[in-house]
Amino acid sequence: MSLQPTPSHTVHVPLGDRAYDIVIAPDAIDQAGTRLAGLFPGARFGIVTDVNVAEAQLPRLVASLDAAGLSHAEIIVPAGESTKSWMHLQDVVDGILGARLERNDILIALGGGVIGDLAGFAASIVRRGMDFVQVPTSLLAQVDSSVGGKTGINSVHGKNLVGAFHQPRLVLADLSALDTLPPRQFAAGYAEVVKYGLIGDQNFFFWLEANASEIGAGGPARAEAIARACAAKARVVVADEKETGERALLNLGHTFGHALEKATGYSDRLLHGEGVAIGMVLAHKFSARLGLAPSQDTGRIEAHLKIAGLPTTLADIPGELPPTPVLMDAIAQDKKVSRGALTFILTRGIGGAFIEKNVDPTAVSGFLEDMR
Amino acid sequence: MSLQPTPSHTVHVPLGDRAYDIVIAPDAIDQAGTRLAGLFPGARFGIVTDVNVAEAQLPRLVASLDAAGLSHAEIIVPAGESTKSWMHLQDVVDGILGARLERNDILIALGGGVIGDLAGFAASIVRRGMDFVQVPTSLLAQVDSSVGGKTGINSVHGKNLVGAFHQPRLVLADLSALDTLPPRQFAAGYAEVVKYGLIGDQNFFFWLEANASEIGAGGPARAEAIARACAAKARVVVADEKETGERALLNLGHTFGHALEKATGYSDRLLHGEGVAIGMVLAHKFSARLGLAPSQDTGRIEAHLKIAGLPTTLADIPGELPPTPVLMDAIAQDKKVSRGALTFILTRGIGGAFIEKNVDPTAVSGFLEDMR
Repeated sequence: MSLQPTPSHTVHVPLGDRAYDIVIAPDAIDQAGTRLAGLFPGARFGIVTDVNVAEAQLPRLVASLDAAGLSHAEIIVPAGESTKSWMHLQDVVDGILGARLERNDILIALGGGVIGDLAGFAASIVRRGMDFVQVPTSLLAQVDSSVGGKTGINSVHGKNLVGAFHQPRLVLADLSALDTLPPRQFAAGYAEVVKYGLIGDQNFFFWLEANASEIGAGGPARAEAIARACAAKARVVVADEKETGERALLNLGHTFGHALEKATGYSDRLLHGEGVAIGMVLAHKFSARLGLAPSQDTGRIEAHLKIAGLPTTLADIPGELPPTPVLMDAIAQDKKVSRGALTFILTRGIGGAFIEKNVDPTAVSGFLEDMR
Repeated sequence: MSLQPTPSHTVHVPLGDRAYDIVIAPDAIDQAGTRLAGLFPGARFGIVTDVNVAEAQLPRLVASLDAAGLSHAEIIVPAGESTKSWMHLQDVVDGILGARLERNDILIALGGGVIGDLAGFAASIVRRGMDFVQVPTSLLAQVDSSVGGKTGINSVHGKNLVGAFHQPRLVLADLSALDTLPPRQFAAGYAEVVKYGLIGDQNFFFWLEANASEIGAGGPARAEAIARACAAKARVVVADEKETGERALLNLGHTFGHALEKATGYSDRLLHGEGVAIGMVLAHKFSARLGLAPSQDTGRIEAHLKIAGLPTTLADIPGELPPTPVLMDAIAQDKKVSRGALTFILTRGIGGAFIEKNVDPTAVSGFLEDMR
């Protein structure tokens, strides 16, 4: 734990009439009541959270809303990726309607990426859209899923195949919530922080390398890393909100990662961020094999991810993986496909990611086979 | 059946980058292949329809797509309002993903309002949004639900409480499909045609009165009635796409109507358009009771709806209705509520509908009790 005082950061996401702030602060949850009362006078609130976060953080949020005199209802769902399902979507929607929340009321997503994706999607479809606020409590949610408006659930056909673009009205990233996060969860979120460096900002990656232990310890460096990650994401989202172009860069490592998550049943065998970590290494190795990127970059990336406690190879995944053709099938069904051609985020090196729409499936298949 | 040749009409909906045409023609389904091939080069198509429409119209659509060399898959669901459910939404979404339709492919909603609402909602959430085309085969769908982008399903808490705004890319309204429609279904759709006159165009209502039998017979008068209804709806939708204001006028008769539909279990006891017909009469009677509208207008409206074969009073609904407090509960849960106050579409007479946001629930309750 750092002994320096941790400053607050605010990152603005300038999306016109859908613009919003990301507030990154040690006490963001405690500020919630005051901020929400100011932004949404007269509104009632529905809080969606999971059983674990309900225990760890809900009392703080409720105390903050109560102190501000805000009316609220709670909808509590099980924890884990399997909650991003049709069944729990319907539970949350029924909970909102049962609590008589109306179009001008506000849904609050209190939790990690699963809760943000699920509650945000529910908010987008109740009465054809109600506003919502993200209160991300995991590092992954703070730097990635709570920002940018992608919401959704998983399908038997793959991850995040059902959903909506629905921007939050405010993001409150509470740094103190990260102190209670299991180390494995923190590491998984950190993979997404590293991703922003790998995509388009090598100086950020070098800064992360140099500040790894300070970031791990919490305090100002961690706050800065999160704010820089959010700002990077915000820039991409503003340039391409609906992912018709460059937003796809944010999927670096995700096509391989999603296939591996599907192969492991979206289970604790492989967290999303862990899949992304392995996927980013694979994307760099594949780019190196195609002669696009220097292979020494791959080693440097692997080393930094390992220091952060992340898996980097297929062999790091516990248990058996399905045969390569099954992985290829998951890759083809991933939503980053267009008219049958495989689209991948490849790279020319650290900070040099680009979208390649004509990747040869045979080359990917052969590469994956060699990586086993 | 009219002996005059029936002209085609095209109504443009100028919604910027979401603009589209409504083509009203006796052979709109037969034109589908050519039109779709021109608009969506390289796309594959998924056709969502119900078992009844599959028998009556699917062969024509398939023949048209085949003749244009377009690849297509079919997703067939049961007929009826109960198909607008979570279960069938998931069926349609899984069908789309199972058919490997991608972001740039096109979903076609072939059928009545249920199919358009269900398929349109599915299109809006698959991979966070794919394009779709409406091929409405009922009068209700042609003049109302296929135009304007409202999609959704029903909830145990009420009708259309879950959904999205998702504009179609094209609407193909096939007039010949109406010739096979059961008279009761045709009449139910006609209630929505009358609605446009009642909302803001008394001359259209007078024209409908004068041409009732020609419209019933089919041919040019029917085509004109549909085109004028679509144009009226398009004007309102363009002025207020997301229903933050005047689009709510389209709900004339719908708050009462939805409550009655809920009270009758969304069943064949009361079709949507029948509920709207009774609801419109109730809205006019209630407005007259409040001294807002001349009571002779109510009689004139009732007479015209009766001629069209529509119910106009609560007593016209077969079976028992639940007690008034249960109806009031459904009215309060209807989505046209704002911070607890009841919002109704009231009227100053034929063509003079307006939005009233502060309707006294006690007055509504007493009125409903008197109407039983």
